[in-house]
Amino acid sequence: MTAAPSTLADIPGLIRVENTSPEQLAAHCAEMTREAYPHQQVYGRYCTIEEYVDCPPAQVYDYLRQGHHLEEWTCSLRGFAPAQTPGLWVGRDLLEENTSIYCKVVASPDAMTVDYHCAWDQGEQLWMIYLMRVVPAQLVLDKPGSLITWTNCRHPYYEANPYPDRAPRPGRRWVGEYWDLFYAGHTLEMRNLKAILEHRHGSGRPVSVLPSTAVTQ
Amino acid sequence: MTAAPSTLADIPGLIRVENTSPEQLAAHCAEMTREAYPHQQVYGRYCTIEEYVDCPPAQVYDYLRQGHHLEEWTCSLRGFAPAQTPGLWVGRDLLEENTSIYCKVVASPDAMTVDYHCAWDQGEQLWMIYLMRVVPAQLVLDKPGSLITWTNCRHPYYEANPYPDRAPRPGRRWVGEYWDLFYAGHTLEMRNLKAILEHRHGSGRPVSVLPSTAVTQ
Repeated sequence: MTAAPSTLADIPGLIRVENTSPEQLAAHCAEMTREAYPHQQVYGRYCTIEEYVDCPPAQVYDYLRQGHHLEEWTCSLRGFAPAQTPGLWVGRDLLEENTSIYCKVVASPDAMTVDYHCAWDQGEQLWMIYLMRVVPAQLVLDKPGSLITWTNCRHPYYEANPYPDRAPRPGRRWVGEYWDLFYAGHTLEMRNLKAILEHRHGSGRPVSVLPSTAVTQ
Repeated sequence: MTAAPSTLADIPGLIRVENTSPEQLAAHCAEMTREAYPHQQVYGRYCTIEEYVDCPPAQVYDYLRQGHHLEEWTCSLRGFAPAQTPGLWVGRDLLEENTSIYCKVVASPDAMTVDYHCAWDQGEQLWMIYLMRVVPAQLVLDKPGSLITWTNCRHPYYEANPYPDRAPRPGRRWVGEYWDLFYAGHTLEMRNLKAILEHRHGSGRPVSVLPSTAVTQ
Protein backbone atom coordinates (compact mmCIF):
# COMPACT_ATOMS: atom_id res chain seq x y z
CA MET A 1 0.00 0.00 0.00
CA THR A 2 1.37 3.38 -0.99
CA ALA A 3 1.54 6.22 1.51
CA ALA A 4 -0.96 9.03 0.93
CA PRO A 5 0.38 12.28 -0.51
CA SER A 6 1.54 14.69 2.15
CA THR A 7 -0.78 17.57 2.83
CA LEU A 8 0.62 21.03 2.20
CA ALA A 9 0.72 21.70 5.94
CA ASP A 10 3.55 19.14 6.20
CA ILE A 11 5.74 20.97 3.71
CA PRO A 12 7.89 23.75 5.12
CA GLY A 13 8.61 26.98 3.31
CA LEU A 14 5.56 27.32 1.07
CA ILE A 15 4.44 30.86 0.36
CA ARG A 16 0.72 30.95 -0.37
CA VAL A 17 -2.19 33.28 0.30
CA GLU A 18 -3.17 31.02 3.19
CA ASN A 19 -0.06 32.16 5.10
CA THR A 20 0.87 35.38 3.28
CA SER A 21 -1.58 38.16 2.42
CA PRO A 22 -1.66 39.60 -1.10
CA GLU A 23 -0.08 42.77 0.34
CA GLN A 24 2.74 40.79 1.95
CA LEU A 25 3.22 38.85 -1.29
CA ALA A 26 3.51 42.06 -3.28
CA ALA A 27 5.99 43.49 -0.79
CA HIS A 28 8.05 40.29 -0.86
CA CYS A 29 8.09 40.33 -4.67
CA ALA A 30 9.02 44.01 -4.75
CA GLU A 31 12.01 43.19 -2.52
CA MET A 32 13.18 40.44 -4.90
CA THR A 33 12.83 42.75 -7.92
CA ARG A 34 15.96 44.77 -8.69
CA GLU A 35 17.05 47.49 -11.06
CA ALA A 36 19.54 45.00 -12.49
CA TYR A 37 20.69 41.42 -12.03
CA PRO A 38 24.29 40.14 -12.13
CA HIS A 39 25.32 38.13 -15.19
CA GLN A 40 25.96 35.03 -13.09
CA GLN A 41 22.50 35.15 -11.53
CA VAL A 42 20.74 35.30 -14.89
CA TYR A 43 23.06 33.35 -17.20
CA GLY A 44 25.38 31.46 -14.84
CA ARG A 45 23.63 28.09 -14.70
CA TYR A 46 21.08 28.34 -17.47
CA CYS A 47 21.05 30.48 -20.57
CA THR A 48 17.65 31.20 -22.05
CA ILE A 49 16.93 33.71 -24.78
CA GLU A 50 13.65 34.48 -26.53
CA GLU A 51 13.04 36.10 -29.91
CA TYR A 52 10.09 37.06 -32.05
CA VAL A 53 10.34 36.11 -35.73
CA ASP A 54 7.96 37.31 -38.42
CA CYS A 55 7.55 33.91 -40.10
CA PRO A 56 4.77 31.35 -39.57
CA PRO A 57 5.38 28.78 -36.81
CA ALA A 58 5.05 25.75 -39.09
CA GLN A 59 7.81 27.06 -41.35
CA VAL A 60 10.06 28.01 -38.44
CA TYR A 61 9.61 24.58 -36.89
CA ASP A 62 10.28 22.87 -40.20
CA TYR A 63 13.46 24.90 -40.67
CA LEU A 64 14.78 24.17 -37.19
CA ARG A 65 14.01 20.45 -37.19
CA GLN A 66 16.29 20.01 -40.20
CA GLY A 67 19.65 20.11 -38.46
CA HIS A 68 21.71 21.00 -41.49
CA HIS A 69 20.29 24.53 -41.25
CA LEU A 70 22.60 24.99 -38.27
CA GLU A 71 25.18 25.65 -40.99
CA GLU A 72 23.26 28.77 -41.92
CA TRP A 73 22.28 30.44 -38.67
CA THR A 74 25.05 29.45 -36.28
CA CYS A 75 28.27 31.42 -36.36
CA SER A 76 30.64 28.49 -36.64
CA LEU A 77 29.00 25.06 -37.21
CA ARG A 78 29.64 23.89 -40.76
CA GLY A 79 29.88 20.89 -43.05
CA PHE A 80 27.40 18.47 -41.51
CA ALA A 81 27.19 15.01 -43.05
CA PRO A 82 25.59 11.81 -41.76
CA ALA A 83 27.76 9.94 -39.22
CA GLN A 84 27.74 6.16 -38.93
CA THR A 85 24.94 6.00 -36.34
CA PRO A 86 21.51 6.58 -37.91
CA GLY A 87 20.21 10.04 -37.08
CA LEU A 88 23.62 11.27 -36.01
CA TRP A 89 25.38 13.97 -38.01
CA VAL A 90 28.95 15.14 -37.80
CA GLY A 91 30.28 18.54 -38.79
CA ARG A 92 32.96 20.99 -37.74
CA ASP A 93 32.93 23.77 -35.17
CA LEU A 94 35.15 26.37 -36.80
CA LEU A 95 35.65 28.17 -33.49
CA GLU A 96 38.53 25.76 -32.94
CA GLU A 97 40.74 24.17 -35.55
CA ASN A 98 40.02 20.53 -36.42
CA THR A 99 37.16 20.28 -33.97
CA SER A 100 34.33 17.91 -34.84
CA ILE A 101 30.82 18.42 -33.57
CA TYR A 102 28.31 15.58 -33.47
CA CYS A 103 24.62 16.37 -33.49
CA LYS A 104 21.30 14.58 -33.32
CA VAL A 105 17.99 16.43 -33.65
CA VAL A 106 15.11 15.38 -31.41
CA ALA A 107 11.97 17.21 -32.47
CA SER A 108 8.35 16.98 -31.44
CA PRO A 109 5.85 18.38 -33.93
CA ASP A 110 3.08 18.44 -31.35
CA ALA A 111 4.78 20.92 -29.02
CA MET A 112 7.11 22.26 -31.75
CA THR A 113 10.16 21.58 -29.64
CA VAL A 114 13.49 21.08 -31.40
CA ASP A 115 16.39 19.85 -29.31
CA TYR A 116 19.92 19.64 -30.68
CA HIS A 117 21.85 16.99 -28.78
CA CYS A 118 25.49 17.75 -29.50
CA ALA A 119 29.06 17.15 -28.37
CA TRP A 120 32.52 18.11 -29.48
CA ASP A 121 35.00 15.38 -30.49
CA GLN A 122 32.77 12.32 -29.95
CA GLY A 123 29.24 11.20 -30.74
CA GLU A 124 28.66 8.56 -28.06
CA GLN A 125 27.51 10.95 -25.33
CA LEU A 126 25.64 13.99 -26.58
CA TRP A 127 25.61 16.23 -23.54
CA MET A 128 25.54 19.76 -25.03
CA ILE A 129 21.81 20.15 -25.53
CA TYR A 130 20.17 23.17 -27.13
CA LEU A 131 16.51 23.15 -26.13
CA MET A 132 14.43 25.18 -28.56
CA ARG A 133 10.74 25.68 -29.00
CA VAL A 134 8.54 27.47 -31.51
CA VAL A 135 5.33 29.03 -30.19
CA PRO A 136 2.65 30.70 -32.34
CA ALA A 137 3.04 34.41 -31.65
CA GLN A 138 -0.69 34.83 -32.26
CA LEU A 139 -1.32 33.06 -28.96
CA VAL A 140 1.27 34.74 -26.79
CA LEU A 141 1.88 38.12 -28.44
CA ASP A 142 -1.35 38.69 -30.41
CA LYS A 143 0.39 38.94 -33.77
CA PRO A 144 1.32 36.63 -36.65
CA GLY A 145 4.70 34.94 -36.62
CA SER A 146 6.62 32.91 -34.09
CA LEU A 147 8.22 33.14 -30.73
CA ILE A 148 11.40 31.08 -30.43
CA THR A 149 12.76 30.12 -27.03
CA TRP A 150 16.24 28.65 -26.61
CA THR A 151 17.64 27.26 -23.35
CA ASN A 152 21.03 25.77 -22.58
CA CYS A 153 21.94 24.22 -19.24
CA ARG A 154 25.40 24.27 -17.72
CA HIS A 155 26.13 20.55 -17.82
CA PRO A 156 29.12 19.67 -15.59
CA TYR A 157 31.14 18.66 -18.66
CA TYR A 158 31.40 22.33 -19.57
CA GLU A 159 33.78 22.60 -16.58
CA ALA A 160 36.08 19.82 -17.74
CA ASN A 161 36.32 17.85 -20.96
CA PRO A 162 35.18 14.30 -20.13
CA TYR A 163 37.03 12.83 -23.11
CA PRO A 164 40.34 14.72 -23.28
CA ASP A 165 41.94 11.95 -25.35
CA ARG A 166 39.43 12.65 -28.15
CA ALA A 167 40.60 16.25 -28.58
CA PRO A 168 42.40 16.88 -31.87
CA ARG A 169 45.48 18.17 -30.02
CA PRO A 170 46.64 18.91 -26.49
CA GLY A 171 45.74 22.39 -25.35
CA ARG A 172 42.80 22.82 -27.75
CA ARG A 173 40.50 25.29 -26.05
CA TRP A 174 37.47 23.58 -24.43
CA VAL A 175 33.90 24.56 -25.30
CA GLY A 176 33.09 25.19 -21.65
CA GLU A 177 35.53 28.11 -21.60
CA TYR A 178 32.95 29.88 -23.78
CA TRP A 179 30.02 29.36 -21.37
CA ASP A 180 30.06 32.92 -20.08
CA LEU A 181 29.79 34.16 -23.66
CA PHE A 182 26.78 31.97 -24.48
CA TYR A 183 24.24 34.70 -23.75
CA ALA A 184 25.96 36.99 -26.23
CA GLY A 185 26.86 34.29 -28.75
CA HIS A 186 23.41 32.76 -28.80
CA THR A 187 21.89 36.22 -29.14
CA LEU A 188 24.00 36.78 -32.27
CA GLU A 189 22.95 33.41 -33.62
CA MET A 190 19.28 34.02 -32.83
CA ARG A 191 19.55 37.29 -34.76
CA ASN A 192 21.02 35.37 -37.71
CA LEU A 193 18.12 32.92 -37.50
CA LYS A 194 15.59 35.77 -37.39
CA ALA A 195 17.24 37.55 -40.33
CA ILE A 196 17.28 34.43 -42.51
CA LEU A 197 13.69 33.40 -41.78
CA GLU A 198 12.27 36.91 -42.15
CA HIS A 199 14.22 37.61 -45.33
CA ARG A 200 13.02 34.45 -47.04
CA HIS A 201 9.47 34.50 -45.73
CA GLY A 202 9.17 38.22 -46.40
CA SER A 203 10.18 37.74 -50.03
CA GLY A 204 7.79 34.84 -50.52
CA ARG A 205 10.50 32.21 -50.81
CA PRO A 206 10.71 28.83 -49.09
CA VAL A 207 12.69 29.20 -45.88
CA SER A 208 14.33 25.77 -45.96
CA VAL A 209 17.24 24.78 -48.20
CA LEU A 210 18.67 21.41 -49.14
CA PRO A 211 21.63 20.05 -47.17
CA SER A 212 24.90 20.94 -48.87
CA THR A 213 25.80 17.25 -48.80
CA ALA A 214 22.61 16.47 -50.75
CA VAL A 215 23.41 19.20 -53.29
CA THR A 216 26.91 17.90 -53.93
CA GLN A 217 25.95 14.22 -54.06
CA MET B 1 6.87 27.64 -59.78
CA THR B 2 8.16 28.79 -56.38
CA ALA B 3 11.14 31.10 -56.10
CA ALA B 4 14.35 29.46 -54.94
CA PRO B 5 15.47 30.16 -51.37
CA SER B 6 17.69 33.18 -51.12
CA THR B 7 21.35 32.46 -50.64
CA LEU B 8 22.92 33.77 -47.46
CA ALA B 9 24.86 36.37 -49.45
CA ASP B 10 21.54 38.13 -50.13
CA ILE B 11 20.72 38.52 -46.45
CA PRO B 12 22.20 41.57 -44.75
CA GLY B 13 23.51 41.57 -41.20
CA LEU B 14 24.48 37.94 -40.71
CA ILE B 15 27.44 37.32 -38.42
CA ARG B 16 29.20 34.12 -39.37
CA VAL B 17 32.78 32.84 -39.49
CA GLU B 18 32.77 33.54 -43.22
CA ASN B 19 32.72 37.29 -42.50
CA THR B 20 33.87 37.42 -38.87
CA SER B 21 36.91 35.59 -37.50
CA PRO B 22 36.63 33.56 -34.28
CA GLU B 23 38.71 36.28 -32.59
CA GLN B 24 36.35 39.01 -33.79
CA LEU B 25 33.36 36.92 -32.71
CA ALA B 26 34.81 36.47 -29.23
CA ALA B 27 35.53 40.19 -28.98
CA HIS B 28 32.01 41.06 -30.15
CA CYS B 29 30.51 38.65 -27.60
CA ALA B 30 32.70 40.01 -24.81
CA GLU B 31 31.39 43.50 -25.62
CA MET B 32 27.77 42.31 -25.35
CA THR B 33 28.47 40.57 -22.02
CA ARG B 34 27.96 42.80 -18.98
CA GLU B 35 28.46 42.61 -15.24
CA ALA B 36 24.71 43.06 -14.89
CA TYR B 37 21.60 43.54 -17.02
CA PRO B 38 18.69 45.91 -16.34
CA HIS B 39 15.42 44.32 -15.21
CA GLN B 40 13.61 45.53 -18.33
CA GLN B 41 16.20 43.99 -20.64
CA VAL B 42 15.91 40.54 -19.06
CA TYR B 43 12.29 40.40 -17.88
CA GLY B 44 10.58 43.27 -19.69
CA ARG B 45 9.09 41.42 -22.66
CA TYR B 46 9.52 37.79 -21.68
CA CYS B 47 9.90 36.22 -18.28
CA THR B 48 11.68 32.87 -18.22
CA ILE B 49 12.83 31.07 -15.10
CA GLU B 50 14.47 27.67 -14.76
CA GLU B 51 14.66 25.37 -11.75
CA TYR B 52 16.12 21.98 -10.90
CA VAL B 53 13.80 19.64 -9.00
CA ASP B 54 14.88 16.37 -7.42
CA CYS B 55 11.92 14.34 -8.65
CA PRO B 56 11.72 12.10 -11.75
CA PRO B 57 10.58 13.83 -14.96
CA ALA B 58 7.60 11.53 -15.53
CA GLN B 59 6.20 12.40 -12.11
CA VAL B 60 6.84 16.12 -12.51
CA TYR B 61 5.16 16.11 -15.91
CA ASP B 62 2.22 14.15 -14.56
CA TYR B 63 1.82 16.60 -11.68
CA LEU B 64 1.96 19.67 -13.92
CA ARG B 65 -0.39 18.38 -16.62
CA GLN B 66 -3.15 18.07 -14.00
CA GLY B 67 -4.18 21.69 -13.75
CA HIS B 68 -5.85 21.45 -10.37
CA HIS B 69 -2.36 21.25 -8.84
CA LEU B 70 -2.06 24.97 -9.57
CA GLU B 71 -4.04 25.26 -6.33
CA GLU B 72 -1.05 23.84 -4.47
CA TRP B 73 1.98 25.53 -5.95
CA THR B 74 0.72 28.93 -7.04
CA CYS B 75 0.43 31.65 -4.45
CA SER B 76 -3.15 32.66 -5.20
CA LEU B 77 -5.05 30.42 -7.67
CA ARG B 78 -7.66 28.39 -5.84
CA GLY B 79 -10.94 26.51 -6.15
CA PHE B 80 -10.80 25.19 -9.71
CA ALA B 81 -13.87 23.39 -10.99
CA PRO B 82 -14.88 22.40 -14.52
CA ALA B 83 -16.40 25.26 -16.53
CA GLN B 84 -19.08 24.70 -19.15
CA THR B 85 -16.69 24.26 -22.07
CA PRO B 86 -15.04 20.79 -22.03
CA GLY B 87 -11.41 21.05 -20.87
CA LEU B 88 -11.91 24.51 -19.43
CA TRP B 89 -11.67 25.06 -15.68
CA VAL B 90 -12.62 28.08 -13.66
CA GLY B 91 -11.20 29.09 -10.30
CA ARG B 92 -10.39 32.24 -8.37
CA ASP B 93 -7.30 34.40 -8.27
CA LEU B 94 -7.21 35.51 -4.65
CA LEU B 95 -4.81 38.33 -5.49
CA GLU B 96 -7.91 40.37 -6.24
CA GLU B 97 -11.33 40.04 -4.66
CA ASN B 98 -14.02 38.24 -6.70
CA THR B 99 -11.68 37.63 -9.61
CA SER B 100 -12.26 34.50 -11.67
CA ILE B 101 -9.50 32.80 -13.58
CA TYR B 102 -10.22 30.46 -16.47
CA CYS B 103 -7.65 27.85 -17.43
CA LYS B 104 -7.14 25.14 -20.00
CA VAL B 105 -4.12 22.83 -19.91
CA VAL B 106 -2.45 21.92 -23.21
CA ALA B 107 0.18 19.26 -22.58
CA SER B 108 2.37 17.20 -24.86
CA PRO B 109 3.75 14.00 -23.32
CA ASP B 110 6.32 13.60 -26.07
CA ALA B 111 8.17 16.85 -25.35
CA MET B 112 6.83 17.09 -21.77
CA THR B 113 5.52 20.58 -22.37
CA VAL B 114 2.66 21.82 -20.21
CA ASP B 115 1.02 25.08 -21.20
CA TYR B 116 -1.58 26.78 -19.05
CA HIS B 117 -3.83 28.92 -21.22
CA CYS B 118 -5.51 31.32 -18.81
CA ALA B 119 -7.41 34.58 -18.51
CA TRP B 120 -9.00 36.64 -15.79
CA ASP B 121 -12.75 37.30 -15.89
CA GLN B 122 -13.64 35.39 -19.07
CA GLY B 123 -12.89 32.06 -20.70
CA GLU B 124 -13.47 32.80 -24.37
CA GLN B 125 -9.98 34.16 -25.11
CA LEU B 126 -7.22 32.56 -23.08
CA TRP B 127 -4.33 34.93 -23.64
CA MET B 128 -2.26 34.59 -20.43
CA ILE B 129 -0.16 31.59 -21.34
CA TYR B 130 2.33 29.94 -19.01
CA LEU B 131 4.68 27.86 -21.15
CA MET B 132 6.32 25.15 -19.09
CA ARG B 133 8.52 22.22 -19.94
CA VAL B 134 10.03 19.32 -18.02
CA VAL B 135 13.44 18.08 -19.17
CA PRO B 136 15.26 15.05 -17.75
CA ALA B 137 18.09 16.50 -15.69
CA GLN B 138 20.15 13.42 -16.49
CA LEU B 139 20.49 14.71 -20.03
CA VAL B 140 21.22 18.35 -19.37
CA LEU B 141 22.76 18.39 -15.88
CA ASP B 142 24.12 14.84 -15.49
CA LYS B 143 22.03 14.03 -12.44
CA PRO B 144 18.66 12.43 -11.66
CA GLY B 145 15.59 14.64 -11.42
CA SER B 146 14.08 17.30 -13.61
CA LEU B 147 14.72 20.69 -15.02
CA ILE B 148 11.60 22.84 -15.28
CA THR B 149 11.51 25.85 -17.58
CA TRP B 150 8.72 28.41 -17.41
CA THR B 151 8.23 31.26 -19.89
CA ASN B 152 5.61 33.99 -20.00
CA CYS B 153 5.29 36.51 -22.81
CA ARG B 154 4.07 40.06 -22.41
CA HIS B 155 0.88 39.82 -24.41
CA PRO B 156 -0.50 43.29 -25.27
CA TYR B 157 -3.55 42.62 -23.10
CA TYR B 158 -1.33 42.97 -20.05
CA GLU B 159 -1.21 46.69 -20.89
CA ALA B 160 -4.98 47.11 -20.98
CA ASN B 161 -7.86 44.85 -20.03
CA PRO B 162 -9.55 43.85 -23.31
CA TYR B 163 -12.83 43.03 -21.55
CA PRO B 164 -13.26 45.76 -18.93
CA ASP B 165 -17.00 45.06 -18.71
CA ARG B 166 -16.25 41.57 -17.42
CA ALA B 167 -14.37 42.84 -14.36
CA PRO B 168 -16.18 42.20 -11.08
CA ARG B 169 -16.15 45.92 -10.25
CA PRO B 170 -14.84 49.21 -11.63
CA GLY B 171 -11.30 49.93 -10.52
CA ARG B 172 -10.37 46.32 -9.84
CA ARG B 173 -6.59 46.16 -10.29
CA TRP B 174 -5.59 44.61 -13.63
CA VAL B 175 -3.29 41.57 -13.85
CA GLY B 176 -0.92 43.43 -16.16
CA GLU B 177 -0.05 45.84 -13.37
CA TYR B 178 1.77 42.89 -11.83
CA TRP B 179 3.92 42.14 -14.90
CA ASP B 180 7.07 43.69 -13.47
CA LEU B 181 6.71 41.44 -10.43
CA PHE B 182 6.38 38.25 -12.49
CA TYR B 183 10.06 37.36 -12.22
CA ALA B 184 9.83 37.50 -8.44
CA GLY B 185 6.35 36.03 -8.15
CA HIS B 186 7.05 33.14 -10.48
CA THR B 187 10.30 32.47 -8.65
CA LEU B 188 8.34 32.12 -5.39
CA GLU B 189 5.86 29.83 -7.08
CA MET B 190 8.60 27.73 -8.67
CA ARG B 191 10.12 27.33 -5.20
CA ASN B 192 6.71 26.17 -3.92
CA LEU B 193 6.55 23.67 -6.78
CA LYS B 194 10.05 22.39 -6.03
CA ALA B 195 9.32 22.09 -2.30
CA ILE B 196 6.11 20.12 -2.85
CA LEU B 197 7.57 17.73 -5.43
CA GLU B 198 10.80 17.12 -3.51
CA HIS B 199 9.00 16.65 -0.19
CA ARG B 200 6.61 14.05 -1.57
CA HIS B 201 9.09 12.29 -3.82
CA GLY B 202 11.75 12.34 -1.10
CA SER B 203 9.40 10.67 1.37
CA GLY B 204 8.34 8.03 -1.12
CA ARG B 205 4.82 9.36 -1.53
CA PRO B 206 2.87 9.96 -4.74
CA VAL B 207 3.36 13.55 -5.82
CA SER B 208 -0.11 14.04 -7.32
CA VAL B 209 -3.30 14.57 -5.33
CA LEU B 210 -6.96 14.39 -6.31
CA PRO B 211 -8.76 17.59 -7.29
CA SER B 212 -10.55 19.10 -4.30
CA THR B 213 -13.72 19.10 -6.40
CA ALA B 214 -13.36 15.34 -6.90
CA VAL B 215 -12.82 14.85 -3.16
CA THR B 216 -15.92 16.79 -2.23
CA GLN B 217 -18.13 15.30 -4.92
